[in-house]
Amino acid sequence: MAIVTLTTDFGQRDHYVAAMKGVILQIAPKTTIVDVTHHIDPHNVLMAAFIIRQTLPYFPRGTIHVVVVDPGVGTSRRIIAAQYLRQLVICPDNGVLSFLQRDVPLETLREVANRGLFATSEPSSTFHGRDVMAPVAAHLSGGKRLTEIGPATDKMEMLDLPLPERRPDRSMRGEIVYVDGFGNLVTNLTRDDLGPTFIARPHARVLIDGKDVGPVRQAYGQVEPNDILALIGSIGNLEIAVNQGSAAKTLGAGIGTPVVVE
Amino acid sequence: MAIVTLTTDFGQRDHYVAAMKGVILQIAPKTTIVDVTHHIDPHNVLMAAFIIRQTLPYFPRGTIHVVVVDPGVGTSRRIIAAQYLRQLVICPDNGVLSFLQRDVPLETLREVANRGLFATSEPSSTFHGRDVMAPVAAHLSGGKRLTEIGPATDKMEMLDLPLPERRPDRSMRGEIVYVDGFGNLVTNLTRDDLGPTFIARPHARVLIDGKDVGPVRQAYGQVEPNDILALIGSIGNLEIAVNQGSAAKTLGAGIGTPVVVE
Amino acid sequence: MAIVTLTTDFGQRDHYVAAMKGVILQIAPKTTIVDVTHHIDPHNVLMAAFIIRQTLPYFPRGTIHVVVVDPGVGTSRRIIAAQYLRQLVICPDNGVLSFLQRDVPLETLREVANRGLFATSEPSSTFHGRDVMAPVAAHLSGGKRLTEIGPATDKMEMLDLPLPERRPDRSMRGEIVYVDGFGNLVTNLTRDDLGPTFIARPHARVLIDGKDVGPVRQAYGQVEPNDILALIGSIGNLEIAVNQGSAAKTLGAGIGTPVVVE
Repeated sequence: MAIVTLTTDFGQRDHYVAAMKGVILQIAPKTTIVDVTHHIDPHNVLMAAFIIRQTLPYFPRGTIHVVVVDPGVGTSRRIIAAQYLRQLVICPDNGVLSFLQRDVPLETLREVANRGLFATSEPSSTFHGRDVMAPVAAHLSGGKRLTEIGPATDKMEMLDLPLPERRPDRSMRGEIVYVDGFGNLVTNLTRDDLGPTFIARPHARVLIDGKDVGPVRQAYGQVEPNDILALIGSIGNLEIAVNQGSAAKTLGAGIGTPVVVE
Repeated sequence: MAIVTLTTDFGQRDHYVAAMKGVILQIAPKTTIVDVTHHIDPHNVLMAAFIIRQTLPYFPRGTIHVVVVDPGVGTSRRIIAAQYLRQLVICPDNGVLSFLQRDVPLETLREVANRGLFATSEPSSTFHGRDVMAPVAAHLSGGKRLTEIGPATDKMEMLDLPLPERRPDRSMRGEIVYVDGFGNLVTNLTRDDLGPTFIARPHARVLIDGKDVGPVRQAYGQVEPNDILALIGSIGNLEIAVNQGSAAKTLGAGIGTPVVVE
Repeated sequence: MAIVTLTTDFGQRDHYVAAMKGVILQIAPKTTIVDVTHHIDPHNVLMAAFIIRQTLPYFPRGTIHVVVVDPGVGTSRRIIAAQYLRQLVICPDNGVLSFLQRDVPLETLREVANRGLFATSEPSSTFHGRDVMAPVAAHLSGGKRLTEIGPATDKMEMLDLPLPERRPDRSMRGEIVYVDGFGNLVTNLTRDDLGPTFIARPHARVLIDGKDVGPVRQAYGQVEPNDILALIGSIGNLEIAVNQGSAAKTLGAGIGTPVVVE
């Protein structure tokens, strides 16, 4: 049986996550269930899109990722299953695949439509994670073929993601796209965007909202505790951080704050 | 080996949950451990009773649910094991089975008394989850028979649960019994209580604390974002919600707030 | 395959924990992964040291504990693997083993240095949990021998832990070393430190920051709800608690607050 991961905005206080796990274990008892996070900000599809993009590449082939951030539950929005890197994501068709779709080749896309695989013939109008996505994932974990879940499709909703920009003076302009639990500010400028022109070059300058935070460094420890620095973070993007502190708090910055490297 | 689920008020910051899991895995290493929640409000037996009632029906036969919300730990309160739907709940005898007992036929009830199955011959006076409930669950997972844990008993503590009421004018009166992490307000009025007289009938009115929030709708998306609505939620009870928002915050309502459907 | 536990300060909101789990499951798919906690206060090595000390003894032989609280990541601090009670801890060499080292005999100590076992030949400078500690744990779970991870070593960093003190008047003086999620104040005075001279003796007095909270009791229920008491807690240390409440809030006490038993 497969690994099934769960990414939701349900929190961990209520019974919703457990209900999904129970449904999975009833259908495919030997499934390995992994919680990615249940702390997506409520209804924040962009955040979920970022998290699943960062998570999927670390898992083995055959993993099934269920992503339930679903403000449109009960409306006509579809549920889809998309294959990337020989793994599957089952999710509402609401843009939650936008980062994956931008960065990783899509291998297969199907609509989840075979009601025979749902937990009930009349799914609730408020909890398709439990009634549709979890049981379909479990049936796939138990050996059902992908072709059985529903017809192939060739379109999906996409969010409008901010793109980095090279300016006439050869500086790069990006913005904060994620703030992690430490308060690290993750930009949309990748190692490749910056390249040897900017990385580890003492004369390069990183400016966040106009404030100069020095060159692109290699490790937190290159500045004193509580000092601000820029470095290439663990996902390969430029991050603004505070050594042993929170850059989000120190700088009052967040999603959308502009960052320039010059 | 079995599935063992854990429901506690321990939070996830300390070592308490891990200690229980270690105890289980020492006794029955192939047990599948599932966290239901560790975020029951501290010592809130009513909340734990609601959560285990909502969780158990989704799990397969043979599952063992350990519920440790135990303000009376160290006193003379008993520990019991109750079977519902061919699953077992191991818990303090403090009313935590009240919702299950109201809604699901009890199949077996035993007192947990066989000290040979405890983790230590002298259990601590403050942590029976680790020293009694977890090891007994693990021994059952490992193949011990239910009859070995202690004598049959026929009484348990019950909480005084609020009941819905049909009023002379044929309206239904209930109250909020649970507030979930999204701020949805869950009432004690079930789909069966309301029936076709009230559900999806445009002239029906739902009043929360006297405020009219319209008829009983089918899906969040039937109102605009940030608007209030009433609908049958995922557990089959009437809920008051805000589309993509928090009804608890918008309305300032909580446990005990009256709801009338007329 | 083995049990691998995870103790970090990552929180559960981001993708960091899931990335570690994916790395482990790619290398050793049948590993049983157990979350100890991801809510160590950011960069708080002392708290992590306390948690792993309290957790390890409950797990079976062969368990591998990965502890990632790593303010020095990217600097020259080493990563080590230490064996206690036939279990292994893989962690930065930053003092996180201080409580274990004080209380439990060290069986083996090695430096993690074999880059062939890392997830990548060029580990990031910010996330050795994912790139070094998780994959090394997984390789050991999968059957690699401990001698393959790197050379034996005989030194490790130690924190300066506060010691209890017996005073000339035969009273014992200790201090708060941990505050749990209930607000219980855990001291560094053990059952053995106090012994029959003080435990369950009605004339013994426990003073926290000079305030008399009575003798050393046996159970929360020996005082009324919301009253303060002292008792031997579940780890075998003297704790100051409030029955069904928070001693930390009631007393305004925390790490370092002095406690005297006389």
